[in-house]
Amino acid sequence: MTASTMQGAGAVCPTPSVERERVLLGHGSGGKLSAALIRDHILPHFTSDVLRELGDAAVVPTAGSELAISTDSFVVNPLEFPGGDIGVLAVHGTINDLAMMGAEPRYITVSFIIEEGLELATLDRIVASMARSAAQAGVAIVAGDTKVVERGKADGLFVTTTGIGMFDGDFRAGPTRARAGDVVIVSGPIGAHGMTIMSTREGLGFEAELVSDTAALHPLVRRLREATAGQVHVMRDPTRGGVASALNEIAAASQVGIELDEESIPVDGPVYAACEILGLDPLYVANEGIFIAMVPDAAADEALEALRSHSLGTRACRIGRVTSANPGTVWLRTAIGGSRVIDMLPGDQLPRIC
Amino acid sequence: MTASTMQGAGAVCPTPSVERERVLLGHGSGGKLSAALIRDHILPHFTSDVLRELGDAAVVPTAGSELAISTDSFVVNPLEFPGGDIGVLAVHGTINDLAMMGAEPRYITVSFIIEEGLELATLDRIVASMARSAAQAGVAIVAGDTKVVERGKADGLFVTTTGIGMFDGDFRAGPTRARAGDVVIVSGPIGAHGMTIMSTREGLGFEAELVSDTAALHPLVRRLREATAGQVHVMRDPTRGGVASALNEIAAASQVGIELDEESIPVDGPVYAACEILGLDPLYVANEGIFIAMVPDAAADEALEALRSHSLGTRACRIGRVTSANPGTVWLRTAIGGSRVIDMLPGDQLPRIC
Repeated sequence: MTASTMQGAGAVCPTPSVERERVLLGHGSGGKLSAALIRDHILPHFTSDVLRELGDAAVVPTAGSELAISTDSFVVNPLEFPGGDIGVLAVHGTINDLAMMGAEPRYITVSFIIEEGLELATLDRIVASMARSAAQAGVAIVAGDTKVVERGKADGLFVTTTGIGMFDGDFRAGPTRARAGDVVIVSGPIGAHGMTIMSTREGLGFEAELVSDTAALHPLVRRLREATAGQVHVMRDPTRGGVASALNEIAAASQVGIELDEESIPVDGPVYAACEILGLDPLYVANEGIFIAMVPDAAADEALEALRSHSLGTRACRIGRVTSANPGTVWLRTAIGGSRVIDMLPGDQLPRIC
Repeated sequence: MTASTMQGAGAVCPTPSVERERVLLGHGSGGKLSAALIRDHILPHFTSDVLRELGDAAVVPTAGSELAISTDSFVVNPLEFPGGDIGVLAVHGTINDLAMMGAEPRYITVSFIIEEGLELATLDRIVASMARSAAQAGVAIVAGDTKVVERGKADGLFVTTTGIGMFDGDFRAGPTRARAGDVVIVSGPIGAHGMTIMSTREGLGFEAELVSDTAALHPLVRRLREATAGQVHVMRDPTRGGVASALNEIAAASQVGIELDEESIPVDGPVYAACEILGLDPLYVANEGIFIAMVPDAAADEALEALRSHSLGTRACRIGRVTSANPGTVWLRTAIGGSRVIDMLPGDQLPRIC
């Protein structure tokens, strides 16, 4: 049954058939159409028993004495791209934020803001891929909401996800814990997500070669933590603003300097080529399937070995080190022997990338 | 310091002064402008220590063996209205969803989707009022996100909040727990929020008399629970879709009939008048500061007394009862002695009301 068939007896005018396949403003009314949208397009995919109760709030079991909580809105344009879509990005992004704090992701809530006129088939595909990625990650989608706004008052679909994670033991990581002497590791090549979105949106012609790196990183984090007996100081997924912005935030939060070695930073050929065309620096390009780890020098080899032993981290490498000099600053030692400051960007290199 | 002053040395062209007071697309980039937006316009209001750490996720203490989790997006138009704004609505709405399950609201996350061009003064007012309403309710705002989309791709501001609540003892309520013989109580007069929004938006001229009822209901719920020793079966805040939709959902979820007495349903004069003009039935109009409770007949007097002893519930009254006849159906006994089915609306009586 489709949402439009719910109108049945109550509808005065027959709905044009093209309208039957799109989201209507009435789907956001809180009435029968809303109920049909949820019943026919959301719940067939999101099958958590807790969600199906449709209470005002989900009630879920918890354990331990602390929770990790993270929230993000996703406004990526286009909604679908090589390697993923806005829904997968939301699930992975939220899982990764929890994983970066050292938590095990357990529950996700999802809220959709839908522009009137969105094709229901598009919504169905996105909801289905969210359900798939959550199931693969072992995370339950437990609560949700849908709102519909008039045509021209949004851009297809915005997705906001909130994640709840639990802690397994005493391990915590965080941006304030970097220490001079730490080795800076990146779990894989940088810039793939951002350049995939840019190439798809701008029609650069790299779409065949570029694929978003979007992935749920908590299994890789778990392996790293176990291999290093929890000696990891900082983990951060360099999304919006890229590696440069993430490292600047860590340098400021921990009051340390960070020195990068340009030649060691892994960038794939198509990403590099697309960056050249657009005049972008890969260090500022968003990633959705890699993370930065800072570990004591003594644990660096074990950390790299652990990362490389997992399919998500085969190309992990050292890219720099944490210093007591230049606190709050990120420096790049360039291939030709010079060095320059890697600042945060002032503004809008890449809008709507996640 | 304002966000725009952050552009300083990096900016090539001077920004026109009118632009300095608005959100720019670059505020969503993840770079310096994003950091400035958060530092200058969000953190001065949201003062939680946990939020200030700006980790990927908040880490908060928890207790007990179960959590309540609720999420909602708010897209109300206009952003500000008599009695509140989109931010207060988001805080109260999320608190109330948790309270309706019998949980004590503890933590809230906030995600903003901002349309380029929103006046920063508007954002500041809304963020400040969110902070105020959360503080008054004793709830901590622990995590957040901001995204900016191009002009014309959103409508000023959308706010998504997620709430986490804890349980105090074994008390649980929920839409599946209504039982034949229960008394249906409403905690106050209906329709005020929806008609305030409609009147403000459409310029009906009732703006002086109509005020949104938006309120955090958990203190009222706590009083009810304590007075009835937790005998309450169902609580529900009848937001989008109004009392009629909420009761239909409960009737379906509990497989019971619900019979309402039209004359007993409290509707204030200006709400009634505005409904008359627009041809609306107050039973379908959204509320943000009342709730429906279903309690065993033996506990009804105590329940009413408890509600009326609190400033948020002075006008609480019985409006009907739960029956074993007509399961899944809501009936209204009219003032002139007839009766009719109160169905869910098929579609869009009141778009963008919350």
